[in-house]
Amino acid sequence: MSSTPTSPRLFPAETTRGFIARALAAAGVPEGDAQVVAELMTEIDLRGGDGHGIFRLVQYIKRIKAGGINVKPDIKLAKESPGMAIVDGDNAMGHLVMRRAADVAMEKAAKCGVAWVGTRNSNHAGAAAIHAMMPLERDMIGLYVAVGNANHLPPWGGTEMLLSTNPLAVAVPALDEPPVVLDMASTVAAYGKVKMAAQRGEQMPVGWMIDREGKPLTDPNRADDGFLLPIGGYKGYGLSLIFGLLAGTLNGAAFGKDVVDFNADDTTPTNTGQFLVAIDIKAFADVEGFKRQVDGVIRAIRASPTLPGFDRVFLPGEQSHAKFQRRNVDGIPIPDVLLGNLEKLAGELGISGLG
Amino acid sequence: MSSTPTSPRLFPAETTRGFIARALAAAGVPEGDAQVVAELMTEIDLRGGDGHGIFRLVQYIKRIKAGGINVKPDIKLAKESPGMAIVDGDNAMGHLVMRRAADVAMEKAAKCGVAWVGTRNSNHAGAAAIHAMMPLERDMIGLYVAVGNANHLPPWGGTEMLLSTNPLAVAVPALDEPPVVLDMASTVAAYGKVKMAAQRGEQMPVGWMIDREGKPLTDPNRADDGFLLPIGGYKGYGLSLIFGLLAGTLNGAAFGKDVVDFNADDTTPTNTGQFLVAIDIKAFADVEGFKRQVDGVIRAIRASPTLPGFDRVFLPGEQSHAKFQRRNVDGIPIPDVLLGNLEKLAGELGISGLG
Repeated sequence: MSSTPTSPRLFPAETTRGFIARALAAAGVPEGDAQVVAELMTEIDLRGGDGHGIFRLVQYIKRIKAGGINVKPDIKLAKESPGMAIVDGDNAMGHLVMRRAADVAMEKAAKCGVAWVGTRNSNHAGAAAIHAMMPLERDMIGLYVAVGNANHLPPWGGTEMLLSTNPLAVAVPALDEPPVVLDMASTVAAYGKVKMAAQRGEQMPVGWMIDREGKPLTDPNRADDGFLLPIGGYKGYGLSLIFGLLAGTLNGAAFGKDVVDFNADDTTPTNTGQFLVAIDIKAFADVEGFKRQVDGVIRAIRASPTLPGFDRVFLPGEQSHAKFQRRNVDGIPIPDVLLGNLEKLAGELGISGLG
Repeated sequence: MSSTPTSPRLFPAETTRGFIARALAAAGVPEGDAQVVAELMTEIDLRGGDGHGIFRLVQYIKRIKAGGINVKPDIKLAKESPGMAIVDGDNAMGHLVMRRAADVAMEKAAKCGVAWVGTRNSNHAGAAAIHAMMPLERDMIGLYVAVGNANHLPPWGGTEMLLSTNPLAVAVPALDEPPVVLDMASTVAAYGKVKMAAQRGEQMPVGWMIDREGKPLTDPNRADDGFLLPIGGYKGYGLSLIFGLLAGTLNGAAFGKDVVDFNADDTTPTNTGQFLVAIDIKAFADVEGFKRQVDGVIRAIRASPTLPGFDRVFLPGEQSHAKFQRRNVDGIPIPDVLLGNLEKLAGELGISGLG
């Protein structure tokens, strides 16, 4: 996460959480659902997923008001076997669909050892990490993959944007250490980071995007003239493709040409697909023994000597965990441009602002 | 795959398969097991996985003769739930352990929709793709991850080699098109490629390895002076770590400091861990309809216009599939140095050579 040139104002999590819930409720989301979504969006902000939390609220509300989200959904199981299910989200907010998918996955994993739950007719659900982390509640490992909501990635060597940033997140619990939480796009940068750079008036580093000639593209306002780059060249392309087939096609959700660009289109149902695998540790091993071994791996890695230019080695999710602890005390930073947008939204919805 | 400066000799698959089986049997592997391993190793060579097929035979035999592999193993289930199992390989050749794991995974997936089977006390099993492809036999998707058998990767920013190339392979069937088969190390280059470059007397490209100062390392004979680089920087490090926790630690197999360098040590059991997930497509969707959709994705990707410098766009596994078809006709290329090593091996084992 990059920092802004001027220090943004800080708001307590309960303040942003309350604001998000008020805004969603004012847009027609039932009170209970608004609370669930606000809780998850705020958890994202607390963990430092600044492109996926309250930053997305204006867009979510715009989509709800345009009729592109079903605020009174009937979320149900479309397919079911002992170790799998497909949750049909009925075009609900993605956070709600994934909360349900996680509950189903954990129930089934408790019986089968492992369960794989896909979604269809879902929507953007924010940062991947929070969904992978849900099974931690029950001493389970979580593995989450989503089809991104706009195609910004061509196949390797191509120029047609048939793929998205399709992220993967995996959360593995430890005993005394924070959990290991990997959360990565299959592209070098997530598109949310491009949007944030544009909003902050910053240039992008070389390596995030190229233009249609294959040359580096660093102006985020010119993002429409180019594509994101996959990690590891053809490997990241392969990951994005496989993730799309498993989280999209297999679930009867959109992938490839069928993906709706939710930045350009507020009304067409996105038919977003995701999947969550819950792995019940106790089926594999003694839970405390496993967690202690994870502690051991974490500590060995953290103790590694460093290359020139590095102060220390971090574990995946370690910096997000530190942010979570700090922001729970200090508050969540809201950059001025975003704050202005949120105050404007409050006015439009006739609710009290962030204050 | 890089090509050698001089054209290597070509051998029919049945010739190399027979040679591998003879060599393994002469080293004490029971006839039936030798056939299974020879079949899988030859499939790897046919698909172009030149660093993981017959190329590894000398090392496997050396290890068997040193007592580092159990040639009369009792491969059995150490843990079992409806949707998961851990196969204890009893220090058998990894190919045999994975063949069993795949059978168990498919049986369980046929009942539960999805099944996750881990291994412990396994060994190096060759190219990841062939294991991910096993479930294709039963119209299932395969997802395979392994802990690599030597640590060549430090955590991001570190210098202690606690991680390996830990590969991922995923195979998704299509209808008229070849299956999509992703097979990737979490490092830019697999260590097998470094070994092959050394054997061929070639330099490595910048980006494969760095030395302990963080500077590019391009001489494969100096590989011990540096480390492999992960794909996507910290993301590839995160993938390697997560794959190690899931394929190693969770299964009671080695990971991190406990990984035995099978290049340096021929006798200590490696306690290699792998896992295979079998996903039964019919639990999710109409099988033919799904495969037809995969065809559609493949064709849309293949039809993408290209960037300057690219002739066409390939699907993951497409070039391996083309090699498989070509090598089934033309034969498997064996570079001169490797051929010499295999003839020497034949002499030592008292068996007829490749001819």
